[in-house]
Amino acid sequence: MLNGVTPEFENRLRGLVDAAAFRADTAPYFTEPRGRWQGQGLVVAPADTIAVAAVVTACAQARVAIVPYSGGTGLVGGQIMEDGPAPVVLSLERLTKIRAVYPSENVLVCEAGVILAHVQQAAEDVDRLFPLSLASEGSARIGGLLATNAGGVNVLRYGNARALCLGLEVVRPDGTIWHGLTRLRKDNTGYDLRNLMIGAEGTLGIITAAALRLVPRPVQIGAALLAVPSPQAALDLLAMAGAQIGDGLSAFELMHRQGLDFLAEVGPEVRQPFETIPAWSVLIDLGLPASGDPDAALERLFADAFDAGLVSDGVIARSAAQRQALWDIRENIPEANRRIGSIASHDIALPLSAVPDFIAQAEVALRALGDMRINCFGHLGDGNLHYNIFPAKDRARGADDALRPAVQKMIHDLVAALDGSVSAEHGIGRAKVGDLQLYGDPAKLAMLRAIKDALDPQGIMNPGVILPQR
Amino acid sequence: MLNGVTPEFENRLRGLVDAAAFRADTAPYFTEPRGRWQGQGLVVAPADTIAVAAVVTACAQARVAIVPYSGGTGLVGGQIMEDGPAPVVLSLERLTKIRAVYPSENVLVCEAGVILAHVQQAAEDVDRLFPLSLASEGSARIGGLLATNAGGVNVLRYGNARALCLGLEVVRPDGTIWHGLTRLRKDNTGYDLRNLMIGAEGTLGIITAAALRLVPRPVQIGAALLAVPSPQAALDLLAMAGAQIGDGLSAFELMHRQGLDFLAEVGPEVRQPFETIPAWSVLIDLGLPASGDPDAALERLFADAFDAGLVSDGVIARSAAQRQALWDIRENIPEANRRIGSIASHDIALPLSAVPDFIAQAEVALRALGDMRINCFGHLGDGNLHYNIFPAKDRARGADDALRPAVQKMIHDLVAALDGSVSAEHGIGRAKVGDLQLYGDPAKLAMLRAIKDALDPQGIMNPGVILPQR
Repeated sequence: MLNGVTPEFENRLRGLVDAAAFRADTAPYFTEPRGRWQGQGLVVAPADTIAVAAVVTACAQARVAIVPYSGGTGLVGGQIMEDGPAPVVLSLERLTKIRAVYPSENVLVCEAGVILAHVQQAAEDVDRLFPLSLASEGSARIGGLLATNAGGVNVLRYGNARALCLGLEVVRPDGTIWHGLTRLRKDNTGYDLRNLMIGAEGTLGIITAAALRLVPRPVQIGAALLAVPSPQAALDLLAMAGAQIGDGLSAFELMHRQGLDFLAEVGPEVRQPFETIPAWSVLIDLGLPASGDPDAALERLFADAFDAGLVSDGVIARSAAQRQALWDIRENIPEANRRIGSIASHDIALPLSAVPDFIAQAEVALRALGDMRINCFGHLGDGNLHYNIFPAKDRARGADDALRPAVQKMIHDLVAALDGSVSAEHGIGRAKVGDLQLYGDPAKLAMLRAIKDALDPQGIMNPGVILPQR
Repeated sequence: MLNGVTPEFENRLRGLVDAAAFRADTAPYFTEPRGRWQGQGLVVAPADTIAVAAVVTACAQARVAIVPYSGGTGLVGGQIMEDGPAPVVLSLERLTKIRAVYPSENVLVCEAGVILAHVQQAAEDVDRLFPLSLASEGSARIGGLLATNAGGVNVLRYGNARALCLGLEVVRPDGTIWHGLTRLRKDNTGYDLRNLMIGAEGTLGIITAAALRLVPRPVQIGAALLAVPSPQAALDLLAMAGAQIGDGLSAFELMHRQGLDFLAEVGPEVRQPFETIPAWSVLIDLGLPASGDPDAALERLFADAFDAGLVSDGVIARSAAQRQALWDIRENIPEANRRIGSIASHDIALPLSAVPDFIAQAEVALRALGDMRINCFGHLGDGNLHYNIFPAKDRARGADDALRPAVQKMIHDLVAALDGSVSAEHGIGRAKVGDLQLYGDPAKLAMLRAIKDALDPQGIMNPGVILPQR
């Protein structure tokens, strides 16, 4: 059994770390983006790795739970512990040093509390790209991005957070420090602890620093928004783009018109690129080396795809501003969704060839459950859809929230039947623990449990995340 | 304590699997490429995953060790158990089905006994590339390549085996089967078991099938062999090539003239491309999409690098045959090395910027140990050197083998001091268990042991590999 934070325990921590580590206003740490859960506990923000280790050691000795807190942007409740004995909420916000940049190695070493946008900027400062990019990049921090193996819009080309990390420094659940901050591209010396920690959502330790992979900055950038007649046409267009453009294809985002309608309805205001909004469109982004010609590549792709009946209309960005305007549409959809207020949201992955089937079947099944609006968008190149369900236009926000369990179960059952994943990039957190137990392979579940028990035998690290709390 | 295979146990296995699973001639399974270790045990080659599970279950019940055996090409003794109670040597050679190919998803699902060259061919048959490529591709099998997280010549562009695998089917040490053969690009549902199994060298379970990632086949191929004045110049050339060519750079191999001298001395016969063999040369490979022009890219790179003093001479392949001739040089160096007979061989990785220092310091330190020849070559783009030491030209093969421990210790000490890895791509096997204990971070070693004990509590899976046998 775990113990809650007591005044005595708080005093003990106050003796271990500086006064600046304690927070008077804890409200921001106890709410989360969709407002679905309410947290609790003692918020502590240590100043460095040694201080993190001191706090963790004290928690281990007292069997007090630890909830690691990074940017607070997670969507599955991994950063929020509603119930149980009061935990220490361990915030990474003061671990904000970029420790070193090695342009000739394409490596940047930073602490876990650095905000993603700052890492992107530091890379740009040495003419490199850190390719991780997602809507919350202005507030999400590296530690949480790694702990959740974050995805985003450039996974197609550069992989997810896992693919962008070479080494880690981690404070283990007993307070010892794993010094694994290697800058090596190859290192076959034992089990892959780095990838085990990445995506473990703070249940096996606390990431305090990381060696991140940079890439040469593509200098010839291009983007196009193309109207496609169907999801299958979008997939065929993806294959055509892959064959013509190869690795230069950075992003391939699918959007249903519902997202553009939401933007028109509630904002944020964006420039609508089509006179008549098409049912489906794809946003394509290219990044080529100096010798490349993205406009020519996009024009050729558009012409060939048009001839093949794969696109019916399109806009090719002619400037950086136009490209940004296209991306503004895609990047503001999550905010429009928040303004409308979803009944249920799903972050699913499917085998690429199953995507059209899923979209067709889910629509039919949803209609049987009630009159709702579907906003289906996402990273088609990765088979990753954000499939979000909203009340009908005449219904009030929240009026149909009672449908959430039935909607989620239907969607997740369908995803499982099509060999998909009920969490493509957001993780399990506390929200999807039941889904993992329900849909997870039994041998997999046995291994997850064995690993958790082996590396965190007291169960103090982010209890109730990924696996049910014991 | 483990039990050895007894006649009774063998009879039990004969009742579980077909007669064709048993091997009369076991000699090939008990020798390895460099002839350094001699194996033992009962060789069993089950016909399918169910049969693998039956054998493993029987071994688990009887506490008999299992040595997974794939292509037998490993260089660190992972496939050879010299001592201890006789194990079951479980060969994957009959698991040779390619179960499915999904060209539109860029996925191929095959069993673990498929030879790498066959996977490459199956990918080519659907106009795709399976990018894993290494000298032993004609005999190495997928299971072993994944178990050792194999590298090879295309890691720079496509990553190692880990980056080329989407899903696994694994027989666990208790005989249960983990059905993890997903074709998904994104799946954040729990700890990363796939990457834990990949690189575990058969100590946590037996990989029986894999979903592999294919890529669009680069259609415009080019190669060049360029003479460089120094390892530092080679690194600067790598940076220049990255900036000019971007992702199209598939391979960047460094070769010291010693390798070309060995080829001239003992074969295999290759066409020497330079009139005077340069001290250092790099082999560059490009693969571009249809619109690319690799010749123009290589000519521009050569011209710019020549002007910058980074290359002094070079050959650009003008045909597929010429390209193959350049690659023949690189790919035959390991065979030439075998014909000469090394005193010690090292598969090391370094932070890129530390490579020139290592090469300079190691040469001085070696000279202090004796008169030896150094063949330094490898995947410079990954910071991965094969740094192999041979007797002086007038010394007989094997005459200086007594120097091996001192040479290895000096090299590995130097690698550790430069934040490198003592096993870049070959793994730990049984050969480097002591090195891992000596150079490994204590927190890392504790986690490796905890994971091994959690997932293989009886310690029957490939005992003595990665970690010391208990």
